[in-house]
Amino acid sequence: MGNYINLFEEIKFKEEVPKYIQISNFIKNLIEKKAIKDKEKLPTIRELSKVLGVNSITIVNAYKRLKAEGYAYQKVGSGTYAKVKELPNVFRKEYSNTLKKLRIDELPNIVDFTGETNIEVLFPIKDLKEIIDKVLERDGVNALISNNSYGYKNLITTINSAFWDNQLNEEDILIVSGAQQGIDIVSKGILNINDNIVVEKPTYGGALSVFKWKKANIFEVPIKEDGLDLDKFEKILQKNNIRCFYTMSYFQNPTGISYSLEKKKRILELAEIYDFYIIEDDYLSELIYEKSIEYIPFKWLDRNERVIYIKSFSKIFLPGIRLGYLVTPEIFRESLQNSKFNTDITTSSLMQRALDLYIYENKWKQNIKNLNVEYSKRYKIMQKILDRDFKDLISYIDPKGGLNFYLTLRDGKITSKELFFRLRKKGVYITPGIMFFTSQNDGQNTFRIGFYQTDENKIIKGLNILREELIECHI
Amino acid sequence: MGNYINLFEEIKFKEEVPKYIQISNFIKNLIEKKAIKDKEKLPTIRELSKVLGVNSITIVNAYKRLKAEGYAYQKVGSGTYAKVKELPNVFRKEYSNTLKKLRIDELPNIVDFTGETNIEVLFPIKDLKEIIDKVLERDGVNALISNNSYGYKNLITTINSAFWDNQLNEEDILIVSGAQQGIDIVSKGILNINDNIVVEKPTYGGALSVFKWKKANIFEVPIKEDGLDLDKFEKILQKNNIRCFYTMSYFQNPTGISYSLEKKKRILELAEIYDFYIIEDDYLSELIYEKSIEYIPFKWLDRNERVIYIKSFSKIFLPGIRLGYLVTPEIFRESLQNSKFNTDITTSSLMQRALDLYIYENKWKQNIKNLNVEYSKRYKIMQKILDRDFKDLISYIDPKGGLNFYLTLRDGKITSKELFFRLRKKGVYITPGIMFFTSQNDGQNTFRIGFYQTDENKIIKGLNILREELIECHI
Repeated sequence: MGNYINLFEEIKFKEEVPKYIQISNFIKNLIEKKAIKDKEKLPTIRELSKVLGVNSITIVNAYKRLKAEGYAYQKVGSGTYAKVKELPNVFRKEYSNTLKKLRIDELPNIVDFTGETNIEVLFPIKDLKEIIDKVLERDGVNALISNNSYGYKNLITTINSAFWDNQLNEEDILIVSGAQQGIDIVSKGILNINDNIVVEKPTYGGALSVFKWKKANIFEVPIKEDGLDLDKFEKILQKNNIRCFYTMSYFQNPTGISYSLEKKKRILELAEIYDFYIIEDDYLSELIYEKSIEYIPFKWLDRNERVIYIKSFSKIFLPGIRLGYLVTPEIFRESLQNSKFNTDITTSSLMQRALDLYIYENKWKQNIKNLNVEYSKRYKIMQKILDRDFKDLISYIDPKGGLNFYLTLRDGKITSKELFFRLRKKGVYITPGIMFFTSQNDGQNTFRIGFYQTDENKIIKGLNILREELIECHI
Repeated sequence: MGNYINLFEEIKFKEEVPKYIQISNFIKNLIEKKAIKDKEKLPTIRELSKVLGVNSITIVNAYKRLKAEGYAYQKVGSGTYAKVKELPNVFRKEYSNTLKKLRIDELPNIVDFTGETNIEVLFPIKDLKEIIDKVLERDGVNALISNNSYGYKNLITTINSAFWDNQLNEEDILIVSGAQQGIDIVSKGILNINDNIVVEKPTYGGALSVFKWKKANIFEVPIKEDGLDLDKFEKILQKNNIRCFYTMSYFQNPTGISYSLEKKKRILELAEIYDFYIIEDDYLSELIYEKSIEYIPFKWLDRNERVIYIKSFSKIFLPGIRLGYLVTPEIFRESLQNSKFNTDITTSSLMQRALDLYIYENKWKQNIKNLNVEYSKRYKIMQKILDRDFKDLISYIDPKGGLNFYLTLRDGKITSKELFFRLRKKGVYITPGIMFFTSQNDGQNTFRIGFYQTDENKIIKGLNILREELIECHI
């Protein structure tokens, strides 16, 4: 029992509202204000009914209501415990505030290994200007008009032909305002409260937030060199009714791992056997630097409409233009279209038309080629320095593509969180492992460094500083 | 009990999953597939435990789980009933499909009184082109970059100075991708499952969908000539713990009603007394045609941080450019910022910059002036014809602004839904009242006609056809 029991004396019951509702709202309020902490035990029924002078059945009903609303949970034989809406992750806030506070004018002097600022955008601005002008000239006022919520028809056709060899049913393509919106829309369209979802451990924090928000039960399954740990996955599938599995099949964030073909096939089989859906988040698969990586997403192998595919263009097109698309199995088509409508009606019409023309005129392909040249150069430099200067300090799995390396500290003299604070003082920014787990205890000895915002010089400079810090800790 | 009881024979229990979970998932599935209908009674506990050969406590637990997930509800002394996620509103689908199927090339020949197509956009396309070019020239690649999720700083400053006399704390302004996203973000940020929300009756369907999705309990309170029916509102406030009240203070959709100053003040008092928040959706207040309407939104009167203000630019700027903003009370600031981030990270940077420059260069004001000239002309024509030719057929309350008239059929010879189908055959499109209520039985004798997409000629043509149809029904 907490020492907040005296707070209950503040309740002033109104006459016309059932007491159990007033009591549950009061407790809800205490939880929201953090007067009662996450996972803190609530008073026993007998205790609280005595303090408030009400019937014990009133307390039972109040606790039932709290549980139904996701503010409390039961431990058998132990009592009722508080549940906070989202875990207050203090470091998460510190991290995002750090990046928010970076001023534009200091960006050139810092080394951003997080890849979450946008000082450098490898995109020919002249092209965009030309494209927008062309669209406005060609379509006139129609460029500003959106006729439906699922997307600009020509863009859908172009996507189908440029990326899917016209193999998709165009009605299954839904334009969204970026991959984050894609995750949100899918979550709203197919998940219910308390539905079970499996994610990779570690995984993208922005997806974790959405699932937590939806009050889904999240199961984390470790990721191995060739994809998910299938033994652990199957044990969870056997014991729980899993609704869906969220995965990044290429250059998984943060680990950089890509799935083997066998694992993808097996997971599709498991989806049939255990009746779950695969949410495939494809965000960087255009950036492949080694021939050993072949591009075959889950969606290409999907014979039984088990895969909801989410494509992001933010990192490989333009970060400030929120665009992406979903490919939905037919059974979710209507539900996801409605979910999109209720989320923001439709995605900016002008930008959809601009992207369409950009792909159609083959500028897209050219730009991806250029990005591959530049980023593979950075990848090689980073790898070379890591292999040469960090052998005794860190280990990593070669991503062979994408924009990040996920590093593991070889000994425990310093946590990656401490390293973050030390490096911040020197103008170098990394992403500690803790950002990619649901529990704050995980990810202590890992961190992600990326080269999305660091050219050759910055990579050399940043890694030098990183090395000095690590060596200093080991003396 | 439904005649679906035989379906339960299909359950094949897996060994490792608790039976109550498998049973509740099976029923959930039947509800989703509509094999069990909304509000249909579920089998009694005794009955189902007999059919499945399981202990009755297992069924009790299965039903508990269904209730917790919002798939069932209890009626005291009567049993457990199914609850469908969103009411399957057949007409709603028919209506939106009708508008979807309109081909661009036939739009010039039809009369769209729904205002939901966008053939005519009163916006100087040349201006937009110039503005975008200017932004790209001025900001270069920065124009494509978004530094934070709450919005482009200059746009926030411009909004504060142009519309709020710099009276707002800029941290309380949050840029969103249109008002629909605003409603979604607010709903995610402040509503919990089973929270009680009051809406006007009738109200905007897109808001109803969001609240239903969030599994809020919706209370509809009738609207009178000067705003909400306060007697009925207070009765609900006395008996239920209301979390928030969703309102459109000016030219309410669909009724066209604006709140009196007294009502606004009283509702703000009630918000303090009964501890609820006001979600103010301000979507058309720029279009005021009569001096008797004075612009004083709830937010201006808000001394106690009770109002979450949502501003849409879609109808008065550009429908295809999704832009709007929220003003949040401080206590919700962080929660709404997170909600925005998890929804789509951020709103298109280029469009935010374009809007900023557009307002800053005073083009905004000029455009609003032009819109007022054009739409007040249409408003007057429509009103003149309604008063002259429809006296015996319909009644309405003068909106004095906005883009719509909400009409009530004087007798019951035809429902507005039937009228919709008859008019559709003649190329005239209206919005039946049913679209604005939670129950399909309401709104039978009302409909909305707007002049957003109808110039003088179309108004005359459309109203002529409407009159002929109505007269034909009365013969």
